Amino acid sequence: MKKKIPVGVLGATGMVGQQYINLLRDHPWFEVVYVAASPSSVGKKYKDALKNGWIVAGELPVHVADLTVHDVADVDAAAKVCKLVFSAFEMPDKEAIRKTEDSYAAAGIPVFSNASAHRHTPDVPMLIAEINPHHLSIIPAQQKARGWKQGFIVVKPNCSLQSYLTPVYALMQAGYDVQKIIVTTMQAVSGAGYPGVASLDIIDNVVPYIGGEEEKTEFEPYKILGGIKGGKFTPHKGMAISAHCNRVPVSDGHLACVSIGFGKKKPDEKTIRSIWKKFTAEPQRLRLPLAPKQPILYREEANRPQPKHDRDADKAMAVSVGRLRPCNVLDYRFVALSHNTVRGAAGGGILNAELALKKGYLG
Amino acid sequence: MKKKIPVGVLGATGMVGQQYINLLRDHPWFEVVYVAASPSSVGKKYKDALKNGWIVAGELPVHVADLTVHDVADVDAAAKVCKLVFSAFEMPDKEAIRKTEDSYAAAGIPVFSNASAHRHTPDVPMLIAEINPHHLSIIPAQQKARGWKQGFIVVKPNCSLQSYLTPVYALMQAGYDVQKIIVTTMQAVSGAGYPGVASLDIIDNVVPYIGGEEEKTEFEPYKILGGIKGGKFTPHKGMAISAHCNRVPVSDGHLACVSIGFGKKKPDEKTIRSIWKKFTAEPQRLRLPLAPKQPILYREEANRPQPKHDRDADKAMAVSVGRLRPCNVLDYRFVALSHNTVRGAAGGGILNAELALKKGYLG
Amino acid sequence: MKKKIPVGVLGATGMVGQQYINLLRDHPWFEVVYVAASPSSVGKKYKDALKNGWIVAGELPVHVADLTVHDVADVDAAAKVCKLVFSAFEMPDKEAIRKTEDSYAAAGIPVFSNASAHRHTPDVPMLIAEINPHHLSIIPAQQKARGWKQGFIVVKPNCSLQSYLTPVYALMQAGYDVQKIIVTTMQAVSGAGYPGVASLDIIDNVVPYIGGEEEKTEFEPYKILGGIKGGKFTPHKGMAISAHCNRVPVSDGHLACVSIGFGKKKPDEKTIRSIWKKFTAEPQRLRLPLAPKQPILYREEANRPQPKHDRDADKAMAVSVGRLRPCNVLDYRFVALSHNTVRGAAGGGILNAELALKKGYLG
Amino acid sequence: MKKKIPVGVLGATGMVGQQYINLLRDHPWFEVVYVAASPSSVGKKYKDALKNGWIVAGELPVHVADLTVHDVADVDAAAKVCKLVFSAFEMPDKEAIRKTEDSYAAAGIPVFSNASAHRHTPDVPMLIAEINPHHLSIIPAQQKARGWKQGFIVVKPNCSLQSYLTPVYALMQAGYDVQKIIVTTMQAVSGAGYPGVASLDIIDNVVPYIGGEEEKTEFEPYKILGGIKGGKFTPHKGMAISAHCNRVPVSDGHLACVSIGFGKKKPDEKTIRSIWKKFTAEPQRLRLPLAPKQPILYREEANRPQPKHDRDADKAMAVSVGRLRPCNVLDYRFVALSHNTVRGAAGGGILNAELALKKGYLG
Repeated sequence: MKKKIPVGVLGATGMVGQQYINLLRDHPWFEVVYVAASPSSVGKKYKDALKNGWIVAGELPVHVADLTVHDVADVDAAAKVCKLVFSAFEMPDKEAIRKTEDSYAAAGIPVFSNASAHRHTPDVPMLIAEINPHHLSIIPAQQKARGWKQGFIVVKPNCSLQSYLTPVYALMQAGYDVQKIIVTTMQAVSGAGYPGVASLDIIDNVVPYIGGEEEKTEFEPYKILGGIKGGKFTPHKGMAISAHCNRVPVSDGHLACVSIGFGKKKPDEKTIRSIWKKFTAEPQRLRLPLAPKQPILYREEANRPQPKHDRDADKAMAVSVGRLRPCNVLDYRFVALSHNTVRGAAGGGILNAELALKKGYLG
Repeated sequence: MKKKIPVGVLGATGMVGQQYINLLRDHPWFEVVYVAASPSSVGKKYKDALKNGWIVAGELPVHVADLTVHDVADVDAAAKVCKLVFSAFEMPDKEAIRKTEDSYAAAGIPVFSNASAHRHTPDVPMLIAEINPHHLSIIPAQQKARGWKQGFIVVKPNCSLQSYLTPVYALMQAGYDVQKIIVTTMQAVSGAGYPGVASLDIIDNVVPYIGGEEEKTEFEPYKILGGIKGGKFTPHKGMAISAHCNRVPVSDGHLACVSIGFGKKKPDEKTIRSIWKKFTAEPQRLRLPLAPKQPILYREEANRPQPKHDRDADKAMAVSVGRLRPCNVLDYRFVALSHNTVRGAAGGGILNAELALKKGYLG
Repeated sequence: MKKKIPVGVLGATGMVGQQYINLLRDHPWFEVVYVAASPSSVGKKYKDALKNGWIVAGELPVHVADLTVHDVADVDAAAKVCKLVFSAFEMPDKEAIRKTEDSYAAAGIPVFSNASAHRHTPDVPMLIAEINPHHLSIIPAQQKARGWKQGFIVVKPNCSLQSYLTPVYALMQAGYDVQKIIVTTMQAVSGAGYPGVASLDIIDNVVPYIGGEEEKTEFEPYKILGGIKGGKFTPHKGMAISAHCNRVPVSDGHLACVSIGFGKKKPDEKTIRSIWKKFTAEPQRLRLPLAPKQPILYREEANRPQPKHDRDADKAMAVSVGRLRPCNVLDYRFVALSHNTVRGAAGGGILNAELALKKGYLG
Repeated sequence: MKKKIPVGVLGATGMVGQQYINLLRDHPWFEVVYVAASPSSVGKKYKDALKNGWIVAGELPVHVADLTVHDVADVDAAAKVCKLVFSAFEMPDKEAIRKTEDSYAAAGIPVFSNASAHRHTPDVPMLIAEINPHHLSIIPAQQKARGWKQGFIVVKPNCSLQSYLTPVYALMQAGYDVQKIIVTTMQAVSGAGYPGVASLDIIDNVVPYIGGEEEKTEFEPYKILGGIKGGKFTPHKGMAISAHCNRVPVSDGHLACVSIGFGKKKPDEKTIRSIWKKFTAEPQRLRLPLAPKQPILYREEANRPQPKHDRDADKAMAVSVGRLRPCNVLDYRFVALSHNTVRGAAGGGILNAELALKKGYLG
C-alpha cells in the first residue's frame, strides 16, 4: 500500500468538509486530491473559497489549500481522479443531496456520506464500524439493483446516538437484550454546523430542542441494529427508545444520560463494566488507522466523562462511558460521551471507508 | 398590617443569604432588621462583611448595608428583635446547623430554612407552598414534642426537584397517579453557592455529577407528597424516581427533561395541558405577595422553556413547562424549569413564611 | 399628553426592532401601532413574522403581536398612522436604507434611526442625548435643503463608543480638553444582531476584530462633538482616538478600557470623579421618560463595572464607570460600560425621539 | 544524554504543578521522580493526593501517579534524588515560598520557579528564554553571595506579559527603541489557578480587574529587559507601560491588545512584520526540546490570533501576533497571544531549565 488512494471531499468548504480534510491530513491510506463545493466556490483555490476561514483545529493542510474547487455537479471531473469521495453536504435539500450522491456512485465512485439523505434508503448501509460492519455485505445487491458497477453508497448515522449506541450494542452482543432506552442528550454547538447556533441563543443558556434530532436518535438505531433480508435492511424489533435532545454551551462533544431496561436476562454491574472494557470489534481486529484501541473507555471517576476532558480520547474516536449505577425505574443508568464532529461525523466516515477498503469493497 | 414584621437572616453573607435580603428589599410584610453570620464577620457592618461583595442582582439595599452583623450563636440578640428568621446556612456541618436552628426555635423564633439539615426530621415540614401547605399543621405537634412555645422549624426542599415536582403534583391532584419518573436535570452553577463551581471546570463543559444531588432529588419528593400520622410525616408510596443530575454552564435556572409513567388511569395530552394551565393552589388563593399568579406556565413554543428566557417568569417564582409529548418508554415527556436561587431557594423560603403568617402560625 | 403618539418600527422583526417594541411596551408618550419589515414578512401578523421567535427579554407585547406587518416600501401606509418611525434596519445595503429613510422623511414622517446609513450625512444629526442635544437645531436646515416639511432624520451613533464618550464629554464640558484616547472594547455578541456571532466562534474564545467597528469608534465622535456651520456639521478637531475592538462571550453590555490624555489643563482624580458624579444634561433636566437619573454612575468597587452586574443600571440607560487611576503613558485610565442594545441602540433612539418631542421638533 | 535527569516538582498537586508533570511526560532530558506538596498530602500516592483530580489535559502519567508525595519542607529527601526542582507553589505567603526555595538552593538543588516570591530579588534572574538568556550569567554571583554551591534560583515572570513582551523585545533588539506601551489584556481563568475564578463571576461576564496583575505587568519587564551591574540586576529605563488587565470567560490563553510608541527611529509596518517573522533566539539556536521553532508567529488573517485557535501553536510555546496597524495615538497597534499555563507558566519554566542545562549551569 505504498501509493495513497486519491480521495475527494464533497461539500468541502463546510465545517464537516473541513473536518474531513483535517483528519485526512496525514492519513496512511487516503490522500485528499479533490475538493468540490457549491457553484459560488467553483474555480477558486480551496483556501480562498473558505468564506469563514479554516474553522477546525490546526492549520489548513498545505497541499489542500491550493486545490482548485470543483463543482459538486461535475462528476466526470471527480471520476478522473478520485477512487472514492466523502460526502459532507450540509445543504437542507435532501432530495438534491440524494441525487448528487447517486450520480457519483453511478459514475463508479464509492460514496461515504455524512448526510442524512440516504439514511433510510432500504439498501444503503448506515454504518457504525464497531456495530454493523457486516452491513457492507449489502453493497453487491445495492449495485445490482441500481446498475452501478464500482460505485456504491455507505452512510453514517446522526451524531446524537453515537455516544450511547456502542455501549448498548456491546451489552446486546454479550447476550443481554436491551429493550428500553430513555436518553437525554446534551449536545455541542458544532453539531449544528457553521454558523449553526447563534451565540445569543446559547450563552448562559440551554435549548431543550433540536429540530428533527429526537426522531433520528430514536429511529436510526433500528436500522443499525437490524438485519438484511432480500437485499434490504429490516429494522431491529423489540427496543423502545425515548430521546430528549438538548443544545448546551459546549463547543464539541455530545454527552448523554442514559437509562436502560433489559429483557428477562439482566447483567449485574460488574458484568456490564467488564463487557464494556473488553469490547472490541472489526475495526480493532483489522487495526484500521482511525480505529480507537478500545472503542469504549470506562471512566471510574465519579464525575466523568466530561466533554472538555474526554472528547478527544484516542484521536477523538473512542466513546467514554461512566457512572454506571442502578436505575430506580429501568435497570441501569450511565453517562456516555463521543466527539460529535470526529467520531460522530468525519472520523466515523473515514473509519467506514477504511473498513470498506480492508474488506475489499473498494476494488 | 401597617407595620412590617421584623425578620432576621442567618448566614446572611452567603449567596442565598444575599438573595433573601435582595428579595425582601420591598416586601410588603417583612423587613430585614437583623443579620447574623459566622464569627469572622461579627461586629462588622453588613456591607463590609461581604468578602466577595454583593453578588446577586441589583444594589445592596441601603437599610441592610449598615446593619451590624451578629454572631449566629447569639440567639438572645435575635430574639429581642426578630419575629422570625430565614436560615441560609451554607456550611457543610449539618449537625451544627441543626443545633443552631433548634436553638432559635427554642428561643421562640420561627425558622424558615434553606438548609438540608432538618429535611428528614420526621416532624419538620418540608414545604413547597403550592403542593403541601397542609403540612404546616404538624407545627403544634412539633412544638409540643420539643417543648417549644412560639418557635418552630419549616424547611424547603432541594432546588433540583422544584422544576418538575409541581407539574407532577398537579397531575396527581387531578387524579392521575404518577408512578414512574426519570428526570435529567441541567443545573445552573448558582445552585452550588459561591464560590461554588470553578470556572475552569465548567467553561465549554458539562459535569454529569453533583455530589448528593440525585439522592435528594429522588428521596425528598416522598416526604413532600406524603401524609401525617401521629405527629410525624409518612412517605408517599408507589412512586419510583430516577435522577441524572448535571451541572451546565448556566448562571441561574435549573432545567429538567422528564419522562413520566402513570398508573392505570392515563390522561391525554390535552388534559395534561389543561390541568397545568388551570392549576392554582393555596398561595394563589391567599394572594401571597411572592406567589406567582400561575404556578405553572405552559410554553407552546417548540424550544421553550429555556433558562435565559424563562427563569425570571413571574418574579422568578413560576415554573415554566413545555414540550409535552408522548414518551416511547414511559407515558409522557416534558421539559420544566425553575429559578434555583429564587423559587428554589430564598423565594421559596419567603413564600413559606408568607403562607405560615396567613395561616396564623406566626402568632 | 393624554393620548399617546402613534409610532412605527421599521425593520421590526430583527433584534433591534424587537428591542424597540420591548422598550416601548409601556412608554408614557409613544405607542407602537405600526410595524414594517422586508417583503417575506408582509401581510403576516407580527408574532408570526418572527422567524426566530421573540428573542429579547420579557414577553412579546400583546397589542403588537397581532399587528399586520407592512412593507417597508409602503410609506403611504405608514404616513396614515405614524407620527414618527424608528428605523431598525439591519440589512447590509446602506444605500437602500438611506433611500428608504429619506422616503419616510419626505412623506412627512420624522425618522429616528439606528442604522449607520446616514451617520455621515452632513446635515443629519448623530445624537447622544446627553452630549449634543443642540444638534437637533440643524433640522430646519435639513428640511429646507431637501424640501421636506415635517419629516426629518436623526440618527444615533454606533454602540461601541457609548460606554466611554459620555464620560469623556463630561470632562470636556467641564473645561478639560481630552486630546488622546486609546480604548480597548470588549463587546457583547448582541452587538452583531441576530443570528450574528456563531457560537462556535465565541465559546471559550475572544475574537480581536469586528469589521468596521474600529473605524466607527474612532470617527463618529468627531461629528458628535463637532459644531454646525452653514447648515452642516463640522468635525471636532484636536482629538486622536485609537480603538481596539474585541468580541467577547458576553450576551449584552459593551465594556471599554480607556486611557486618556489631556491638553495642558489636567484635572486631578478627585475632580474627575466629582465631574462624573455630578454630570447631568438635557434629558435629565427635561425628565425624559427613558433618561437615566444620572447619566454616569461611578462605581467605587475595585472590580466594577462588569457587564453582568452593571449593564441594566437605571433601565439599562446609564453608563457605569469605574477604576479611575493614573495612566503611565497618557494621563488617566478608567473602565466604562453601557448596554449596547438598550442605551447603545433602541433605548438611545427612543431617548432621541423623546428629546425631539420635548424640544418641539415633532410638530 | 542517555539517562534522563531526575527532577522534582514542588507544589505538585496544584494546577501549575500538574501542568509541569503533564509537560514533562515524555521529556527527552528530564524525568519527574519526586513530588512534594503541603502536609495534608504527604505520604499519599500522588494520584490520591489530587483533591480535585487531574485537571489538566490528557491522562495523569502512570509513572508519576504512584509516586509518594513528600513534604515540601523535607529538603533532604529531595536532595537525595533530584538534580533540580520546579517550584509551582500557589500559596499566598510569599515569604514562606522564598524561604522554602532558598532552602532547596542551599541544599544544592537548582530551583526553577513559577512563584512570584523571588521575582524582585536583585540577584535572581527572571527569565524569558528568548529575551534575556544572558541573565543566567548572574548565577555564580548569586551562589557566591549566599554561600550556595550547586544550587541557585531562576524565576519566570508573570503570565500576563508573555504575550506582548517578546514581540516588543524583538523590535528593540532590531534597534527600535520602544518607549511607550499601553496594553489591555484579556486573560484566561486558568491564570488564577484552581479553583480560581468562580463560575458565577465569569459566565456571561468580564471582570475588569485582577488583583496585583497590572503592577506585575508594568514592573517586571524592566528587570527582564535590564542589565547586570555588580552582581545585581539594574532595571531598564526609558519605557513607560500602562496595563489594563481583564478576566474573560476563556479557559486558556491570554490575549493582549497593544499600542506602542517608539523613540525617534520608527520602523515601517513591513519592517516590523519582517523582524517578527525572522526573530529567533538562544532556545532556537540550541534546539531546546520545548523551544518553539519560531518564537513569534505572525498571523495574516484579519481576526487572529484568537485564544481558541492559536493558544496551542507549536506545543503552546509560540507567541501568536496579528493585526499590526498604525495607532492613532502612539505609533502602532497589534494583538498578541500566549498560552498562560504552558508558555506563561510550566512550559516557560521547563524551557528555562533546558537553557540552563545546555549553558552548563546544571553542573
